Amino acid sequence: MDEMIKPLPRDRKPRRRPRTPNPEVRSRLLVAAGELINEEGMPQLRVDRIAERAGLSVGTFYLYFDGKADLFANLVVELTGRLRRRLRSAYEQGTTTAERLERALDAYLDFVESNEKGFVYFRDSGTVHTTVGSLNAWAFGQYAEDLRPLLEEGMERGEILREDPELVAQALLGLMQHLAGFWVENRDHISRSDVKRMLVAVGTRSLQP
Amino acid sequence: MDEMIKPLPRDRKPRRRPRTPNPEVRSRLLVAAGELINEEGMPQLRVDRIAERAGLSVGTFYLYFDGKADLFANLVVELTGRLRRRLRSAYEQGTTTAERLERALDAYLDFVESNEKGFVYFRDSGTVHTTVGSLNAWAFGQYAEDLRPLLEEGMERGEILREDPELVAQALLGLMQHLAGFWVENRDHISRSDVKRMLVAVGTRSLQP
Repeated sequence: MDEMIKPLPRDRKPRRRPRTPNPEVRSRLLVAAGELINEEGMPQLRVDRIAERAGLSVGTFYLYFDGKADLFANLVVELTGRLRRRLRSAYEQGTTTAERLERALDAYLDFVESNEKGFVYFRDSGTVHTTVGSLNAWAFGQYAEDLRPLLEEGMERGEILREDPELVAQALLGLMQHLAGFWVENRDHISRSDVKRMLVAVGTRSLQP
Repeated sequence: MDEMIKPLPRDRKPRRRPRTPNPEVRSRLLVAAGELINEEGMPQLRVDRIAERAGLSVGTFYLYFDGKADLFANLVVELTGRLRRRLRSAYEQGTTTAERLERALDAYLDFVESNEKGFVYFRDSGTVHTTVGSLNAWAFGQYAEDLRPLLEEGMERGEILREDPELVAQALLGLMQHLAGFWVENRDHISRSDVKRMLVAVGTRSLQP
């Protein structure tokens, strides 16, 4: 990860830092927090329980993170990187633009399914203002950066509609995120296959040259 | 307005209420808050400045609202109702489904343009949990309720793709909200007409029967 994204600072005393930060300890704290969010949701998240789950002390937690907001921003950055790698690898498989996009859609829905509570909370966390602006807009920008070259290639090959690739990327990503969120909040009457079929139908049609 | 939507209560003393609430006073406070949000953004919003702008005392403010969060929830409910009426009236004009949707899109973009800062803040405010759940999901539900019959009519007439009208409505609304948000945050290189052209192109194609 080449960026250190931090929530914008509030007035507080500078905190202690580990002399030699241990990436394994940091990662254990992030994994523990991710698990607890998915089991119980973000509002229930408590620092002492994260430390307990990670088998570390609360003091150690505060050597690595300023608190819940800082930890959450770091977790989002980590999960964004992970999803980005999965989407990129989906783009590399398949030959036509349509095939690649369908594989990416599957990878996205898999990810949402295994991080459901965190996903919903994150979708609603645009108000976490960090050194890179709103985290949500930042993550969209990251995904759009990877999707753009794929779309440009499809446009050059005449496979898809010639339009501003930045806007097309945002349109596809926005559509995918919104319907995925609607799905996880309406599982009682909407299935993953309903949402996937709909996204493929709408996506395919909307990209017609 | 037939609903009284409140943020979920925290522990606090019950507050005083006006003996005979005056809708005109309540409305003046909401209008003042809406203006201040659009001028300066939500984080800058202060109760004393809302009262000042409305020509009322801080004490009067607290007779009508518990604080900023309560006021904001009420403002969102009011603005949702206002946008809903504009969209409904757009649906009533025009004959084909495509015409009606294009008019609604114009009404939506007008609304976003005149409430820009509030719109961005609201888009990111899904974490405001109220007695009707997340305010953002609630507002989407309201707009979808009005859009659905229009889509069902279009499907019956064979003008648009036959699919689950609830999902189609969510897809169109999600797409519109996402691209409108992307537009207002990227005004330096994206114009309203770019976004409108894109939404019409994608919307028209994606609804093809």
